[in-house]
Amino acid sequence: MTVYTASCTAPVNIATLKYWGKRDKALNLPTNSSISVTLSQKDLRTLTTASASSDYTSDKLWLNGKEESLESPRSKACLQDLRQLRAQVEASNSDLPKLSQYKLHIVSENNFPTAAGLASSAAGFAALVSSIAKLYKLPQDMSELSKIARKGSGSACRSLFGGFVAWEMGESIDGEDSKAVEVAPLSHWPTLKAAILVVSDDKKDTPSTSGMQLTVATSDLFQYRIKDVVPKRFEEMKSAILAKDFEKFAELTMKDSNSFHAVCLDSYPPIFYLNDTSKKIIKLVHKLNELEGKIIAAYTFDAGPNAVIYYDESNEQKVLGLLNTYFGSLGGWESYQGETLPKLEIEGTDSEIYKGVSRIILTSIGEGPQETDQVLTV
Amino acid sequence: MTVYTASCTAPVNIATLKYWGKRDKALNLPTNSSISVTLSQKDLRTLTTASASSDYTSDKLWLNGKEESLESPRSKACLQDLRQLRAQVEASNSDLPKLSQYKLHIVSENNFPTAAGLASSAAGFAALVSSIAKLYKLPQDMSELSKIARKGSGSACRSLFGGFVAWEMGESIDGEDSKAVEVAPLSHWPTLKAAILVVSDDKKDTPSTSGMQLTVATSDLFQYRIKDVVPKRFEEMKSAILAKDFEKFAELTMKDSNSFHAVCLDSYPPIFYLNDTSKKIIKLVHKLNELEGKIIAAYTFDAGPNAVIYYDESNEQKVLGLLNTYFGSLGGWESYQGETLPKLEIEGTDSEIYKGVSRIILTSIGEGPQETDQVLTV
Repeated sequence: MTVYTASCTAPVNIATLKYWGKRDKALNLPTNSSISVTLSQKDLRTLTTASASSDYTSDKLWLNGKEESLESPRSKACLQDLRQLRAQVEASNSDLPKLSQYKLHIVSENNFPTAAGLASSAAGFAALVSSIAKLYKLPQDMSELSKIARKGSGSACRSLFGGFVAWEMGESIDGEDSKAVEVAPLSHWPTLKAAILVVSDDKKDTPSTSGMQLTVATSDLFQYRIKDVVPKRFEEMKSAILAKDFEKFAELTMKDSNSFHAVCLDSYPPIFYLNDTSKKIIKLVHKLNELEGKIIAAYTFDAGPNAVIYYDESNEQKVLGLLNTYFGSLGGWESYQGETLPKLEIEGTDSEIYKGVSRIILTSIGEGPQETDQVLTV
Repeated sequence: MTVYTASCTAPVNIATLKYWGKRDKALNLPTNSSISVTLSQKDLRTLTTASASSDYTSDKLWLNGKEESLESPRSKACLQDLRQLRAQVEASNSDLPKLSQYKLHIVSENNFPTAAGLASSAAGFAALVSSIAKLYKLPQDMSELSKIARKGSGSACRSLFGGFVAWEMGESIDGEDSKAVEVAPLSHWPTLKAAILVVSDDKKDTPSTSGMQLTVATSDLFQYRIKDVVPKRFEEMKSAILAKDFEKFAELTMKDSNSFHAVCLDSYPPIFYLNDTSKKIIKLVHKLNELEGKIIAAYTFDAGPNAVIYYDESNEQKVLGLLNTYFGSLGGWESYQGETLPKLEIEGTDSEIYKGVSRIILTSIGEGPQETDQVLTV
């Protein structure tokens, strides 16, 4: 049995300008452009091995050792697009094996616990598309491939680049101009760091797709957000990144997180992703910045209560020192060499705040998908 | 010693279309019109006795037996306006005692615990203005007097009427057209009821005046709310009230509460008034309406975590039956004769929800300020 195999890793990305709202659900076309920071794969990545063989009888996927379905319209759309591009490659060179006609086996593994509630679908689809593109030896660049990843999971398109990434919403009905582009590579600002506070929550969050649909359909404020607020913020944030202006970047990041959660709350019925612990973390970050006299840390929250706190390495001692004071008893501090700072007196932020958090993940800005020789097997 | 005395009671009102944002802080002129329901004074009212005497040496105020200052610019503005109107009365009839030149003693008492966190300043200033207007035998109607109460506390102007009340924002710089008017009297829809869930909270809420200022200054979405969302909703809500269309009234009420809290969250730094218990109550109300197949209950939240739930008496058994299931162990059910319903299975709403609530107040729509012979003394 001949099996063709290729492996890639792909990163998680955390939006600083949020994607919320689809103008086309099937194609995952957004109602606004978004911006994200790609996180280091040392801490958070999906490794995927794609293999094709004429002996395989069906497309199959194993995720973290468990077989999962590839029958969702989104997964099928990705595979179909990739096969079509492979067929073009084969048409131009008849010596190549007809991989486009073979079934695929995809084996995927995350290096972080799924239970953490971190959006793993972005890294997952980015790794799937990257590994199959490598297997198929596709000539397309990352922006082109990002359109395929986007069909799997909207925000996955941003995981095809490292550093700072923009997802340009595009205007075309077929989505051919809705793709990820690099704003700045990792090397532009390698000292950007992130601390993720994994917030415990007993309730099940509203899934993001249905949440977005509800917001688009019912929130009055949402229309203003996508038409007036985000387009301006998109340009401002790109400028702040290019200028490495942390204070501006941080302010825009926090404001956009709040704006996104505001339109969730303005939906009917309202959608809540922030819980009381999230709110205490928000207050803690504002207090830290206030005491420092400038903005040295920025929070952002996706469709869940987890906090991602961005800061520059030059302020690591101040930011992590404070977080260590409140959350030092949790797991995840192995890499931290600094000291613990005195507790801040913060209205509404008690010393029990750590009880709402299950662990911390200390990480940093990172690279886009990487090829690897490592092969995952079932 | 000759003392002239008059007493009035005034009600609490709970906005269904929220007042949030001042265009003039000194005059309490709002950035949008608002609508409220006046609650029954049987359950929630301020009783105020105003007295004037040539022997008094200074203006004094006692609230719930404790002397309080009348030196705030707001209190002084109210007393000054009322004295000016009295002076006009005296000028047209020289036989009248010169009460406008006498100092005032004001004794005030709430029939509900201040600790409940219910906005008592509205009832307080309405009772103060009503009692002094009665003492001064002022000929002005309630809308005219509402402009004076408004200077004391914006929402107080709405407590000068019973039933359903609109506060028309006005356009004039001096605020002379920013006043309360009756949308419909109590007799129009006397079966409207309210259940107040007093939510416990360990944190101190952002005071509404500074909160409003922050929202006006920093929230992008706020501008859209006041310019586009509220003006339309104001007309729709008045129509729903006049048509006694509970479902429409309820939907608008819930949406406006959410919209108000959304612009709070969109402020920078964000303002949070809803806590996790508030959110569970919101979910409970939506679930009740969903199971019923129509809207029979509406929540609304002011600048704090307390929930006010409006419903029509015809659905009392369904609404209170459900609330009794979850909150029956709390104080405040003395007047309830109905039964307890089976618990609903609600995602995120556990049976522990009652722990976040300190008591329930069962009340209904009510009358405006009432004259009374009862006299409070220090």
